[in-house]
Amino acid sequence: MQASHDTSLTGSLQLTKTGRLKHFLTITGLSKELLTEILDTADSLIEVGERNIKKVPLLRGKTVVNLFFEASTRTRSTFELAAKRLSADVLNLNINTSATSKGESLSDTLKNLEAMASDMFVVRHAQSGAAHFIAESVTPGVSIVNAGDGWHAHPTQAMLDMLTIRQNKGKFEGLRVAIIGDILHSRVARSQIRALNTLGVKEVRVIAPNTLLPKHVESLGVTVYNSMDEGLKDLDVIIMLRLQRERMQGALLPSESEYYNLYGLTTERLKMAKPDAIVMHPGPINRGVEIESEVADGEQSVILDQVTNGIAIRMAVMSMAMGGQMEERQLKQKTHNELSESEERL
Amino acid sequence: MQASHDTSLTGSLQLTKTGRLKHFLTITGLSKELLTEILDTADSLIEVGERNIKKVPLLRGKTVVNLFFEASTRTRSTFELAAKRLSADVLNLNINTSATSKGESLSDTLKNLEAMASDMFVVRHAQSGAAHFIAESVTPGVSIVNAGDGWHAHPTQAMLDMLTIRQNKGKFEGLRVAIIGDILHSRVARSQIRALNTLGVKEVRVIAPNTLLPKHVESLGVTVYNSMDEGLKDLDVIIMLRLQRERMQGALLPSESEYYNLYGLTTERLKMAKPDAIVMHPGPINRGVEIESEVADGEQSVILDQVTNGIAIRMAVMSMAMGGQMEERQLKQKTHNELSESEERL
Amino acid sequence: MQASHDTSLTGSLQLTKTGRLKHFLTITGLSKELLTEILDTADSLIEVGERNIKKVPLLRGKTVVNLFFEASTRTRSTFELAAKRLSADVLNLNINTSATSKGESLSDTLKNLEAMASDMFVVRHAQSGAAHFIAESVTPGVSIVNAGDGWHAHPTQAMLDMLTIRQNKGKFEGLRVAIIGDILHSRVARSQIRALNTLGVKEVRVIAPNTLLPKHVESLGVTVYNSMDEGLKDLDVIIMLRLQRERMQGALLPSESEYYNLYGLTTERLKMAKPDAIVMHPGPINRGVEIESEVADGEQSVILDQVTNGIAIRMAVMSMAMGGQMEERQLKQKTHNELSESEERL
Repeated sequence: MQASHDTSLTGSLQLTKTGRLKHFLTITGLSKELLTEILDTADSLIEVGERNIKKVPLLRGKTVVNLFFEASTRTRSTFELAAKRLSADVLNLNINTSATSKGESLSDTLKNLEAMASDMFVVRHAQSGAAHFIAESVTPGVSIVNAGDGWHAHPTQAMLDMLTIRQNKGKFEGLRVAIIGDILHSRVARSQIRALNTLGVKEVRVIAPNTLLPKHVESLGVTVYNSMDEGLKDLDVIIMLRLQRERMQGALLPSESEYYNLYGLTTERLKMAKPDAIVMHPGPINRGVEIESEVADGEQSVILDQVTNGIAIRMAVMSMAMGGQMEERQLKQKTHNELSESEERL
Repeated sequence: MQASHDTSLTGSLQLTKTGRLKHFLTITGLSKELLTEILDTADSLIEVGERNIKKVPLLRGKTVVNLFFEASTRTRSTFELAAKRLSADVLNLNINTSATSKGESLSDTLKNLEAMASDMFVVRHAQSGAAHFIAESVTPGVSIVNAGDGWHAHPTQAMLDMLTIRQNKGKFEGLRVAIIGDILHSRVARSQIRALNTLGVKEVRVIAPNTLLPKHVESLGVTVYNSMDEGLKDLDVIIMLRLQRERMQGALLPSESEYYNLYGLTTERLKMAKPDAIVMHPGPINRGVEIESEVADGEQSVILDQVTNGIAIRMAVMSMAMGGQMEERQLKQKTHNELSESEERL
Repeated sequence: MQASHDTSLTGSLQLTKTGRLKHFLTITGLSKELLTEILDTADSLIEVGERNIKKVPLLRGKTVVNLFFEASTRTRSTFELAAKRLSADVLNLNINTSATSKGESLSDTLKNLEAMASDMFVVRHAQSGAAHFIAESVTPGVSIVNAGDGWHAHPTQAMLDMLTIRQNKGKFEGLRVAIIGDILHSRVARSQIRALNTLGVKEVRVIAPNTLLPKHVESLGVTVYNSMDEGLKDLDVIIMLRLQRERMQGALLPSESEYYNLYGLTTERLKMAKPDAIVMHPGPINRGVEIESEVADGEQSVILDQVTNGIAIRMAVMSMAMGGQMEERQLKQKTHNELSESEERL
């Protein structure tokens, strides 16, 4: 489905000539070094959220547009807070209810926003590849951050998960990690699998019924389990997915209670994993559907740490991508000046 | 109805160990000294609204979340402006249209917002006691300000009324004040009665038909009048309530015009009060329903002063509550450090 | 229709006693010098959009309220960005969904917002004359900027067009300019005609079928053409209007394709104008309805420059009008102080 984007070309689209981040679209094509740089930057920004004055001037005077073609209060709020703590000016646009209703094309809407001297678009779209499409056509100097596109990717969510794992486990080497639930419809799962493999965990498992697994899922570098009891064995990290009830269309699953019986994470089942395994979930939680309340609120849960880390990761990615763009703008300006000078000399 | 919250415990929930404000939920349980401190702080902040640069750095780098479970553009705007003039970052969330529609519980939504390092929730909710419930369960260090909960309380509205009275009358001692209209359904009236009695006015009257009075209303410390002509006599302050037409269900009142005949404040009736009596109304006004246009716009009206004072009171309450929370955070940090030191010594 | 507002009185309503801008309601009544001052100020502010830090402190600590009685994400966004780059605090109010639904009058809503110490209202309204009405009744010291009122005026749009023409042509003298399309329903066209004539172009043409022209349109100072082939001859500037399909009611036009055949701007037709003629459009574009895609994206198109200039013009108008109001406030304060002093001497 997203094959055309999962190439090394995507990597280069995201990077400046000197290898710095300039867009953040997908984990695919990003090196272990770059992912580690994102985690390190986020680590240093976590401290900002603990200060009395939660502000750094990294994006001061920059205009960040939250361009949400699909409503998501939660994700929009984290990006809005991250941008404001970086001192940016933020414009929230919910595009369903605006320009496109007047029949303007996506491309024209974007050209207009660029002409308003926007510096960054945080894009959420129901269609896979939307953020890539925009990054390919956007004016040089403007940064695109993918806040979730269809079933394709949700890379800031994946990176906040990586940060949470590193905080708790200290490293990625040697870890066994499982992603549990509706892998088929999850943009998060795809991004997580890429990130985990790039960062060098020992094993990535997916645990789900076959109806909720993409075809040829093994080719992404995962081991497949259909049974919780087997899949949970020896795990260091358990990543639950949200059961997107609105996406289910009856045929894939018999009933919520049967799903819970087979794939819900209960206190009993949690004992199958390592005693110090951590439990993660992207939220919002469906208590009693994919996870037992006691587990969600229990000692092994790091679900709220994920939320805190989400702000830090978004601040990190936004400031790094803007830094890369500023470098390119300066380079362009320098080349332009040199050309002018040599013209003058002629 | 709200008996469980109207205890001295509520007072202590709102205060730090040293007696400073840390949440602002209700007038109940707050001392005359504390209410006076709020008024004095607001007085000093009124000047900010008159400056060329209407900004003070009291909440700089703090994150204020306007958490409105019930829509109210007017109240939300005043809190948003107050927070921005205190230099806070503001996030507006209308919860009807967001997370809860995905089936997340209130408690989970709040835990998530706390994990984003929010410093203050301004809460509006249709259910009485909602702000208390949140204050009881919120992470230490996060401040709750009640922006109206069901029929229970609307304490910032009550305090802006107190500020307006003090501005015009100089003191509370010796004043006769009447609250007129739908006391039964008014969260404002309950808060006003508490505040007036705490601040030491001579007499608080309520003027309304019995159908619009709560049972045992006298126990709140008021004198009951069913007739305007009698109730208006010797008054210093007249507080009209808005007739919430949407809350009326036919049975309580015969008709709007009959209500106006009996309880509307007209130029004629106003003459029954003291010649220097002031006329107040929380807005929005229903002209010709509970108040005559000439009275609303007349010389004795201080209705627009109430609006101006509303910004100052909200700035005062937000900065005081945040100050109390900062004190508690530092105390906790200090205790934590001392414990660490003594552990090291062992 | 708007006759009552198109008088010299409107001019004086917009100006301080010393002739500085204090409201920006309409082009009518503004001198060539003042329009030139707006263009010069905007020119100097364009540079702000090219800086690393796109911020100037001209409206720091001021409260700008975007008061939109008619939804327009595009216009609202440009005003919001302009205000934020001037360092103002911005409050967005969509009045359809707020106070007026509670039955409050426009006048009461405004009085309330003024009492919150708002400094400027950016007003969009479906009714012609709304901004004037508000400017006439607003508290002295508060500035009104018209962001489009009915069929009457959209003066910031007209001024960003003037800025774009001056950027490309260097001057107004000697220029032939045509406005093409639905003049009848266009608030922009009225403002453009006034501005072009005031700034001294050689000729303003309107090109449209008679059904889309106001009666007596010649009295505005334009030459009328019903045919594109004749009207385009010798043009320096071509201003296309958007075909407001939602305003068409069947009777005025036979069909979109016939309209395009007669009045669409195609590559072929463009050749009738001067070879260096520029093509303008206020957006959003209906490609293939009033303009061919190749023309909209072609070398002669300056459509995206118009968008960029829109931010600069709005920043210019907002800062100039606020400057005028500050002068009046100081003058009033000075007079007040002098009166007090002379009273004291008595």
